[in-house]
Amino acid sequence: MRRPARTVGVLGGMGPIATHDFFGKVLAASDARTDDDHLRLIIDNNPFVPDRNAAADGGPSPGPVLAAMARGLEAAGAELLAMPCNAAHAWADDIRAAVRIPFVHMIEETAVAVRAATPQARRVGVLAADAALKNRLYETALEAAGYEALTLSVADQRAFMDIIYRVKAGNVDAALRAEMRSCAERLLAEGAEAIVAGCTEIPLALAPGDITAPLIESTTVLAQRVVVLARAD
Amino acid sequence: MRRPARTVGVLGGMGPIATHDFFGKVLAASDARTDDDHLRLIIDNNPFVPDRNAAADGGPSPGPVLAAMARGLEAAGAELLAMPCNAAHAWADDIRAAVRIPFVHMIEETAVAVRAATPQARRVGVLAADAALKNRLYETALEAAGYEALTLSVADQRAFMDIIYRVKAGNVDAALRAEMRSCAERLLAEGAEAIVAGCTEIPLALAPGDITAPLIESTTVLAQRVVVLARAD
Repeated sequence: MRRPARTVGVLGGMGPIATHDFFGKVLAASDARTDDDHLRLIIDNNPFVPDRNAAADGGPSPGPVLAAMARGLEAAGAELLAMPCNAAHAWADDIRAAVRIPFVHMIEETAVAVRAATPQARRVGVLAADAALKNRLYETALEAAGYEALTLSVADQRAFMDIIYRVKAGNVDAALRAEMRSCAERLLAEGAEAIVAGCTEIPLALAPGDITAPLIESTTVLAQRVVVLARAD
Repeated sequence: MRRPARTVGVLGGMGPIATHDFFGKVLAASDARTDDDHLRLIIDNNPFVPDRNAAADGGPSPGPVLAAMARGLEAAGAELLAMPCNAAHAWADDIRAAVRIPFVHMIEETAVAVRAATPQARRVGVLAADAALKNRLYETALEAAGYEALTLSVADQRAFMDIIYRVKAGNVDAALRAEMRSCAERLLAEGAEAIVAGCTEIPLALAPGDITAPLIESTTVLAQRVVVLARAD
């Protein structure tokens, strides 16, 4: 058994299937041989956070609910927070302002991981939900790291969002997987040298081997980073 | 969207992979088309609960830690508690004494499910961890329901526990699956007409179609029951 690791609080439920996927990726990243090699995780799987994409269109803000969840996780004993939903990172400041414990920022960590995975690339394709794009979450992080960020056309983005909602409905089949792969391939055709899976529903329908270029999955990046930080001295 | 369902608190981490499996089974049982069709779950995945099997041999009791987890989940907003670990139900009284909210008892629910699945059966084979057997958790529940409970011989139980710890280590492969199936088949050879998967690691290595008799999985029973009770008026 390693030294006691920090307890990780997870702001989840956005959506629940993606949170379940993140949980599994944390377990895998823990490289555990016994139960107590794993991390203590407190997961608030809350599917009632106001819709991030609707909020980007003027709907109710998820900020207050996310801040309350963060405070609840801190009160329950969390020493580190993570949120497996990219779009919700538009309200990261509300979370950070609500607690004293560190918040591991999925998008900043993913930009770092892009550099490690594809040091030579200049143009990176970003698949992300409307709220993430409207708030330029990945564009800002990638441009700060020296990349050009490519995103889907308006029509293709509409098709991508339709796929995401079908994933949330549990309707992942071969046809849906092909459509998701096609979204990534359009960005590659436009010159992207790597693809960021910047929405936590994407890995439920697209795997790294499915496309010819590197696929950097934000869910996996966050899971691996959480394990490292929870165990850090 | 249905009427707001109750928030479910999960005493988890015993082990973490089994808790992840339970989470997935709750998602599947929720039959959701959108994120907010799902339940709010607060999962305390705590792999540092004192070992249940060691406790049955005189080691430290998990009772106080389980009681503290239950109180923490109630304070975080849980309105219903569930614990996807059969052996830990030997300390169910400590949990119930610690909180005001209902605790859904996995073993009692599984005994009810056995009746629904195999109304004609008389003899039911039980695969369960040492701590569950030493405390006669399933024997008591099944005998109260009119069944005879069959368990493994001492030597076979030792082999079964070895399989369970290999599942916890993430070592599920075809050979391990065959060994797990063989444990179930020994109980069938002794006259069992159905098998209870009375340890939450079992479904990670044995599926209902793997044996010729009905397999009643306590994890699935608890997941389905939690969804029903969370949504009940």
